[in-house]
Amino acid sequence: MPATPSDAEVLTLGNLRAHLDDGTWSAASVIEATLRRIAKADRPEIWISRASEAQLAEAVEQIEARKAAGQSLPLFGVPVAVKDNIDVAGMPTTAACREYSYVPAKSATAVQKLQDAGAIVIGKTNLDQFATGLVGTRSPYGAVRNALDPKYISGGSSSGSAVAVALGLVPISLGTDTAGSGRVPAGFNNIVGIKPTRGLVSTRGVVPACRTLDCVSVFALSCDDARTVVKILGEFDPQDPFSRPVPPPIAKLSAKFRFGRPADAYLKFFGNAEYERAFKASIEAMKQIGGEEVTIDYGPFEAAARLLYEGPWVAERVAAIREFWTTKQDALHPVTRSIYANASKFDAVGTFEAMYKLAELRRASLAQWQNMDVLLLPTTGTTYTIDQVNADPVATNTNLGYYTNFVNLLDLAAIAVPASMLPSKLPFGITLMSPAGGDSMLCALGARLEKSLDLPIGATGSKATRDGVASASDEKAIVHVAVVGAHLSGLPLNYQLKNRGGQLVRATQTAPYYRLYALPGTTPPKPGMLRSPDKQSVGLAVEVWELSAAAFGEFVAEIPPPLGIGSVELEDGSAVKGFLCESYALMGAREITHMGGWRAYLAAQK
Amino acid sequence: MPATPSDAEVLTLGNLRAHLDDGTWSAASVIEATLRRIAKADRPEIWISRASEAQLAEAVEQIEARKAAGQSLPLFGVPVAVKDNIDVAGMPTTAACREYSYVPAKSATAVQKLQDAGAIVIGKTNLDQFATGLVGTRSPYGAVRNALDPKYISGGSSSGSAVAVALGLVPISLGTDTAGSGRVPAGFNNIVGIKPTRGLVSTRGVVPACRTLDCVSVFALSCDDARTVVKILGEFDPQDPFSRPVPPPIAKLSAKFRFGRPADAYLKFFGNAEYERAFKASIEAMKQIGGEEVTIDYGPFEAAARLLYEGPWVAERVAAIREFWTTKQDALHPVTRSIYANASKFDAVGTFEAMYKLAELRRASLAQWQNMDVLLLPTTGTTYTIDQVNADPVATNTNLGYYTNFVNLLDLAAIAVPASMLPSKLPFGITLMSPAGGDSMLCALGARLEKSLDLPIGATGSKATRDGVASASDEKAIVHVAVVGAHLSGLPLNYQLKNRGGQLVRATQTAPYYRLYALPGTTPPKPGMLRSPDKQSVGLAVEVWELSAAAFGEFVAEIPPPLGIGSVELEDGSAVKGFLCESYALMGAREITHMGGWRAYLAAQK
Repeated sequence: MPATPSDAEVLTLGNLRAHLDDGTWSAASVIEATLRRIAKADRPEIWISRASEAQLAEAVEQIEARKAAGQSLPLFGVPVAVKDNIDVAGMPTTAACREYSYVPAKSATAVQKLQDAGAIVIGKTNLDQFATGLVGTRSPYGAVRNALDPKYISGGSSSGSAVAVALGLVPISLGTDTAGSGRVPAGFNNIVGIKPTRGLVSTRGVVPACRTLDCVSVFALSCDDARTVVKILGEFDPQDPFSRPVPPPIAKLSAKFRFGRPADAYLKFFGNAEYERAFKASIEAMKQIGGEEVTIDYGPFEAAARLLYEGPWVAERVAAIREFWTTKQDALHPVTRSIYANASKFDAVGTFEAMYKLAELRRASLAQWQNMDVLLLPTTGTTYTIDQVNADPVATNTNLGYYTNFVNLLDLAAIAVPASMLPSKLPFGITLMSPAGGDSMLCALGARLEKSLDLPIGATGSKATRDGVASASDEKAIVHVAVVGAHLSGLPLNYQLKNRGGQLVRATQTAPYYRLYALPGTTPPKPGMLRSPDKQSVGLAVEVWELSAAAFGEFVAEIPPPLGIGSVELEDGSAVKGFLCESYALMGAREITHMGGWRAYLAAQK
Repeated sequence: MPATPSDAEVLTLGNLRAHLDDGTWSAASVIEATLRRIAKADRPEIWISRASEAQLAEAVEQIEARKAAGQSLPLFGVPVAVKDNIDVAGMPTTAACREYSYVPAKSATAVQKLQDAGAIVIGKTNLDQFATGLVGTRSPYGAVRNALDPKYISGGSSSGSAVAVALGLVPISLGTDTAGSGRVPAGFNNIVGIKPTRGLVSTRGVVPACRTLDCVSVFALSCDDARTVVKILGEFDPQDPFSRPVPPPIAKLSAKFRFGRPADAYLKFFGNAEYERAFKASIEAMKQIGGEEVTIDYGPFEAAARLLYEGPWVAERVAAIREFWTTKQDALHPVTRSIYANASKFDAVGTFEAMYKLAELRRASLAQWQNMDVLLLPTTGTTYTIDQVNADPVATNTNLGYYTNFVNLLDLAAIAVPASMLPSKLPFGITLMSPAGGDSMLCALGARLEKSLDLPIGATGSKATRDGVASASDEKAIVHVAVVGAHLSGLPLNYQLKNRGGQLVRATQTAPYYRLYALPGTTPPKPGMLRSPDKQSVGLAVEVWELSAAAFGEFVAEIPPPLGIGSVELEDGSAVKGFLCESYALMGAREITHMGGWRAYLAAQK
């Protein structure tokens, strides 16, 4: 008889899956625990609607039946919350505006993917109306209070989804992120918020804010959990015109990497000295995990943030609800209404001009990526109490977007990660950013930082393990290739790797089963390596280089005979791609295996 | 002493380069011949300005010096014409509006690339003012008359550049193409006009029409010549925010290919029965060169063409000359002015809505590319006399854009190619289109069609050879790989090729230097192939498959040991990439070389 998780358990994905897999808990008992936690939390403003007990029971029945039928359900029994601008079939979508509400027949693609994977939707969460805001107070369903200190804002617009995760009610929730809505509330509630590459996760079934910029985002208790969910959600959707084939994933960073940061003159903390100190500490924390600090030109990023705020994109918000706006303007939250009214200031000429400006800033920002692997920023420069926001709703909101507004305009991926717990008992968060395609890389780097910092999780006060379930390799588009001869660092053909963006992973040795020969008459001089049936006295010195699949394809295509690429076993027993030589070409060649490698041979020739 | 080319010579790039290389002609004598031809042609309206004799002499001197210094100049001594909305240092840029005129200090990137390659700019050519129009009549410098029949329009907006090439004055000219300006005049003047993939050729130094859509285009006397020039021009320009890393080139089409065409209901010839018959004939001509006719859903293409015409993109034209428009509106050609006045109809909301519609149409059009390799369309549905256009300047222009307007919106590459000479002595042209990246492929297919049709060149009346100079391989991003075992068509691992977009190129045999072995204990059963020092009695049956470099990289990455990829020699002596086996694994394996291939072995096992 499965037990019900106790309230003390931190229900990360990893923890849930382990207990559901071994039968300690059941899908029904996890739902039961979840409902008890929700009641106990006493934060009714998190939810705009909740799945009925009948709906939950039916969902449990369905996944049990699918499991029994042998289906693989990577999120079996995982309770999730969904921001109420994302459709869940049979539950109202309000976008925090009662008059706008409708009940969709179909779930949004992202929700459907969670459900297909076995997740159970617990409820729809509160948000800044029409996802317009970074505060979490602009809702007729009430301001969503911070998970750690209810006087403070939760951040928005994905306020309810973030607080539900931070309080440990659900391990995973969906938000949306146009200008920062998936990151700011993560920062304020001490959890992870990833805004994937634009177009990676389908936005079909999401009430648009700015359709050209909108992303579905994910809140989680750990970077590993976030990564698992993004991998489930990310798939090209031909029915979503803004879905796109995403560039090949960016490779995981090596032990050493470069992180960019703005010069101090660009940093704004709006008088919050505690945040300023915390950001300086986070720079040190990044160094601790192998990062080299690089001060980059933040100008294009800052200018793009202003462009979003001052430019025509507000017209997209009106376009998204044009009929409703035309006929029922009075139904809007007064702050939201005042923002939307700005749309009429922009004409088509000005819209195109803003797009030109953006194209220029995008180009200028790309140049900065030559000097860094990731960009490190505070998630926000300060925080506010609910009263402070109510007193000045627009200016406070503007300040919160200083480090977030440009991200979708410049086509970046971003992950907000907890960085410290302040003396005030509020959390401070940083955001790591990369060009499009860096989603997995950012999650992996975030996980490295998490491990190093070892902070309490969300508002749970616990430091329970964040280790995710081992996920299937997602580095398929990256190839490791062992080079043994003229492609080694500093040797004549090394440029063929470097020019293609190749990165040295490590210098190591082959397993002791290879023979090395100096190939006669080759220019530049090259060795040939051959796997031998007999154990040799030495392994051979090799370098392992990392290439994208495309670069690897080009690289292999230009290798002349008698050389080729096969699999090479390394001294640690692992296998990588590597250079092999056709045996016919080795007749008469001088064997140099005993020298242990090509460099030793070259040195002996001098 | 070099001779001067006679007026009877058709000065294609190939012809020019052959005579310049062997010293029959000199750069100076070619310029002399060009000036004589220009005078003799008596078409002053082609030119808005011309290089002075001193400028030409200086240009000749410079390239002679560079040649003497050993520089490689692939366009050495080639006279070119440049549309007068593209900057040439030291010559006025008017965009066909005197009041707008300025003298740039720097040449446009595209012009600079031609000059760097040794070309000499002869003059700046007339155009529909601000590149707005497809007729060639909207210019204060006069209507540009058709090269073949001066009663007829030349087409626009790149009118002068097209007629200069058609009359054999210069072999190459630059145009621009936003909605058809690089294709319509090619069609009307019996020459080749290529509109490369958007972003492939830098637009820096070009007076914008619609910056998000503008392309520099190339007119030439043959598809080979056009290809040579596009290869010189095409390079990522970090200083042009609309330059972009273009998708990998699309592979050349095999002997058999599929061409899409609209259903008859979508075809419009505006009462021109001669054009209608000619288009039907061009369908047959495409079949003659290996094409399989496929009727596709033309709906999304037609809707996108309308969207350009009815949508907010006219506001980009105003944005491009905003200050001039605000202060000197009266200086515009009356037709141009009336068009630009429409910009004020569009607001930001409408602009974003049009972009959403476009995103949907782009997605819908992509689906059609599943069923065709190229799209075949008439370049225009009809033609007009200059008088007819003057009588109804907007409606006639609209009709001419029916088959061209959508191309840049949908991110296609297109080449306009002469298709027949009509009984009326006017030419009829077709346009071949492909998704972005198809530039070289389209040129190669156009060259195939040219050879098969063997029409007179431009307005020269001559059928001189169109053969271009052999160009360096540009198919680097495509890899041919020979498969010998379980990857053959119909065998268990063939999906690894097909799922990656692999295409069977041909079935053939290896050179007789390979031994084949059945590898013991492999699932699915696999052979191992090894190059042998001895000549064998038979070659081995292989299939050659074509993959993109990226797909090839992924493919190689998943090949398990003892197999690898090296170089394989085929029976015709050519070398492709192919499967090889490490020799250590063949000990004890059964040799099956004598069977001639893996299929024969499998058949014998049954």
